[in-house]
Amino acid sequence: MAAVPVWSVDPRTGKQREQVAAEATAADIDRAVRAAHAARAALADRSARAALLRTAADVLDASGDEVIATADAETALGAARLTGELARTTAQLRAFAEVVDEGAFLDIHIDHADAGRTPPWPDLRRMKLPLGVVAVYAASNFPLAFSVPGGDTASALAAGCPVVVKAHPDHPATSELCASLLRRAAVEAGLPADVVNVVHGFEAGVELVKHPLVAAAGFTGSVRGGRALYDAAAARPTPIPFHGELGSLNPVVITEAAAAERAEQIGAGLAGSMSMGVGQFCTKPGFVLAPTGEAGDALVKSLTATLSETGPGVMLDHRMRDAFAAGVRERAELPGVEAPVTPGADGEHTVNAGFLTLPAELLAQEGPHDLLLEECFGPVAVVARYSSAEEISAVLSRLPGNLTATLHLADAETDGGDADAASGAAGLLAEVTPLAGRILVNGWPTGVAVAPAQHHGGPYPATTSTSTSVGATAIERWLRPVSYQSTPEALLPPELRDDNPLGLPRRVDGRQEN
Amino acid sequence: MAAVPVWSVDPRTGKQREQVAAEATAADIDRAVRAAHAARAALADRSARAALLRTAADVLDASGDEVIATADAETALGAARLTGELARTTAQLRAFAEVVDEGAFLDIHIDHADAGRTPPWPDLRRMKLPLGVVAVYAASNFPLAFSVPGGDTASALAAGCPVVVKAHPDHPATSELCASLLRRAAVEAGLPADVVNVVHGFEAGVELVKHPLVAAAGFTGSVRGGRALYDAAAARPTPIPFHGELGSLNPVVITEAAAAERAEQIGAGLAGSMSMGVGQFCTKPGFVLAPTGEAGDALVKSLTATLSETGPGVMLDHRMRDAFAAGVRERAELPGVEAPVTPGADGEHTVNAGFLTLPAELLAQEGPHDLLLEECFGPVAVVARYSSAEEISAVLSRLPGNLTATLHLADAETDGGDADAASGAAGLLAEVTPLAGRILVNGWPTGVAVAPAQHHGGPYPATTSTSTSVGATAIERWLRPVSYQSTPEALLPPELRDDNPLGLPRRVDGRQEN
Repeated sequence: MAAVPVWSVDPRTGKQREQVAAEATAADIDRAVRAAHAARAALADRSARAALLRTAADVLDASGDEVIATADAETALGAARLTGELARTTAQLRAFAEVVDEGAFLDIHIDHADAGRTPPWPDLRRMKLPLGVVAVYAASNFPLAFSVPGGDTASALAAGCPVVVKAHPDHPATSELCASLLRRAAVEAGLPADVVNVVHGFEAGVELVKHPLVAAAGFTGSVRGGRALYDAAAARPTPIPFHGELGSLNPVVITEAAAAERAEQIGAGLAGSMSMGVGQFCTKPGFVLAPTGEAGDALVKSLTATLSETGPGVMLDHRMRDAFAAGVRERAELPGVEAPVTPGADGEHTVNAGFLTLPAELLAQEGPHDLLLEECFGPVAVVARYSSAEEISAVLSRLPGNLTATLHLADAETDGGDADAASGAAGLLAEVTPLAGRILVNGWPTGVAVAPAQHHGGPYPATTSTSTSVGATAIERWLRPVSYQSTPEALLPPELRDDNPLGLPRRVDGRQEN
Repeated sequence: MAAVPVWSVDPRTGKQREQVAAEATAADIDRAVRAAHAARAALADRSARAALLRTAADVLDASGDEVIATADAETALGAARLTGELARTTAQLRAFAEVVDEGAFLDIHIDHADAGRTPPWPDLRRMKLPLGVVAVYAASNFPLAFSVPGGDTASALAAGCPVVVKAHPDHPATSELCASLLRRAAVEAGLPADVVNVVHGFEAGVELVKHPLVAAAGFTGSVRGGRALYDAAAARPTPIPFHGELGSLNPVVITEAAAAERAEQIGAGLAGSMSMGVGQFCTKPGFVLAPTGEAGDALVKSLTATLSETGPGVMLDHRMRDAFAAGVRERAELPGVEAPVTPGADGEHTVNAGFLTLPAELLAQEGPHDLLLEECFGPVAVVARYSSAEEISAVLSRLPGNLTATLHLADAETDGGDADAASGAAGLLAEVTPLAGRILVNGWPTGVAVAPAQHHGGPYPATTSTSTSVGATAIERWLRPVSYQSTPEALLPPELRDDNPLGLPRRVDGRQEN
């Protein structure tokens, strides 16, 4: 059978740039997974892992110009955005090196024997170990930060797990380039290159999640693609953890008082957040509850003005562009829906940002308008106009899970000075908390800080697990605990010895050490 | 449709004792789940949760005689064992009250805004929240510690999640009694009784895991039953976490030197551990690698002698007794398998403990003997005799995942004095670590301490997730993180306010507080 070529395509023209690779066959997948599996033992050394992560960051930074140019040529995301994304990616790799050095992720518990317990305790010492080979499914919209050198790869390597990355077809050249840089960094850090592997092709992705030596998977992408892989992971003879980030509406609720206080600022802020990166962020605010009446009208006017001035943009590929145009069209045709600024395809290769609006009451019960409660990837938001708190509650109760939920509140609702206003705001916060993994007040959800307190995840379909794919705790996804019972000191891993030779943070007999 | 009666049966006679309840219909399940869901808000108060757990322990202790008599009448486990199990169960409830009071499980991270980061950090504050209603599937073999008042219930309530327990058909009267005691404890602690609910029936269990308001499930039981429920949980429109403990061989490796040093003691210890509780522990050592030659012979002789003196026992029900007898028969008929002490059915209602033995080389490759690598529930162990380190490795590489793996080593292999012996032991430890969640040296796996450093879980089929069902960290299964970004102090939960009014352990700007 002839190899299926993998092309790098320029989304600004729709033209093929170059053939980058071939789609992986089942034999290729088997080879890649076995190579990764064989590299496992080398990753057991935590200092080598930290060195690998730092070297990877250095090597990527050093090749920054080439990485950015390549990524821009096949994603059209622009040099400015990609420069920021590369900086974020290398900062993320270095942050995980610090996580590895510190060792809190090992989650060490030591309980010395205690005959007075019911039942008596033997000597028990627990730490976390890497799961094994991790399959990473790269995202379309972040060719660096959520792709080959991205958060899933960085956190898996930090945990001690080699990776096989299924590259996204929107940036195969960037994927190959980054993989070769990471593999070079591995060798420079004294590790086998096979701690990082990359494969291409849709079928290859399905084969990968089914491979017996794959121990866990991380995914960022669509509900449809992610669910199919989740189902395949669950149907394996030996099911594996599948941490998928699938889709999110990222609802925003703007109170009447907030609109009255700063309609123009909120409208302009919303326009910026929803159209940023041509609306291709997983945290794009796609659904907004704004008040009816004068303040809400002023907000919509500001949104209209700002969006009207936003120039056309190039989406990641033409299939997405077509899906965006069709999705907008289908939504705009629903009764009661208006499009003050019409989003959709523009010219041959670009799209325009815009928004749809309708009375919130149309969403209070099941019906054809439910389509508006599904994510539409691209620069469009749905603004539902509410006229009572009950309408807000009714619509919120119908939303699926999200990565984020945002409240825009007035000063009087947040400064604690006015008891009634504060209680209304607290009620709203309590209502949105079950809907999302990150709650924002008076901010915008696009932009995800790589911080230990970050949570980039949320109720399904935002994620298929309770984990985060961003921030220090993302490492937890690739580990499993092991307890050693009554194990002689000479046989214990150094992490668990009484004298704590590695100076790790540990919980010993119920007390935190270090 | 007439209600299907649920009977309590005496396994010592096979006779029905009394009708205890009726199998739950779909409408009953819906009612129970909705009642639990409505009780959620009351559990948000952590002090109320701690009070509930302590009151539940007190109420169970106060009704100890009745609980033990009821459990014994329908499980035949005996008053001594059940007295111990009740003590363990109430200690477990109290231990989770301490976990709730301390609050480390909230896993609080606070990162103040930092414009110097890449990209800049806004103020981010993360804690964990309860998932919602938890479905608990009770185990046959622990009518208390892994059933209605058991670890799944205790950890779910500690997390703030109401439970609907699917009772095990082997002890419906105990389940009803314990549910009424827990519900009484809830009311005494000022909470709605519906924080604990119990339902009966196989179909009811399937309905339960599919209910849209069920947010997670915990299961202890067989591979077949657990996998069916896991599959149902994964196939839901909104999949939920399913923490199932399904089955385990619990391999034991006895080195030649250990056998030479203390053959008699190890043989007797093995006999005790594998026949304890009529071999009905999930941690029963079901598979043993013992050396050929004189030392191994002496060990087998000691095992034979001790098991021959073990009297017959009553299993939990007659279906299990039949399955045990059939499972042993099928295994004993395999070529090369001998039964020095024949396990199997004895008389009308009891079984005898025994063991099977064969050359380890018969297990080194795929074949009909693979049946011996599957758990056989009841008092039987398979002793495979090896004649080289290579044979040990070959057989270990073929084992499925386990809750435990045990090494019996000689003094010279553990005291660090003899480098060669120590390195052989370390190699063996490294070989068994990937196979299990708990590693023991010179002990027996039956008996699971309820300690923070405990891990009762392991690679599939031992568990369907990377979690533990015993010990303080079992609470992690029922929580999800939420981050609050740039949220004004007045709106933040008290757990996340700067002044830490609740005195909780937190990680603030990378440093542990309290």
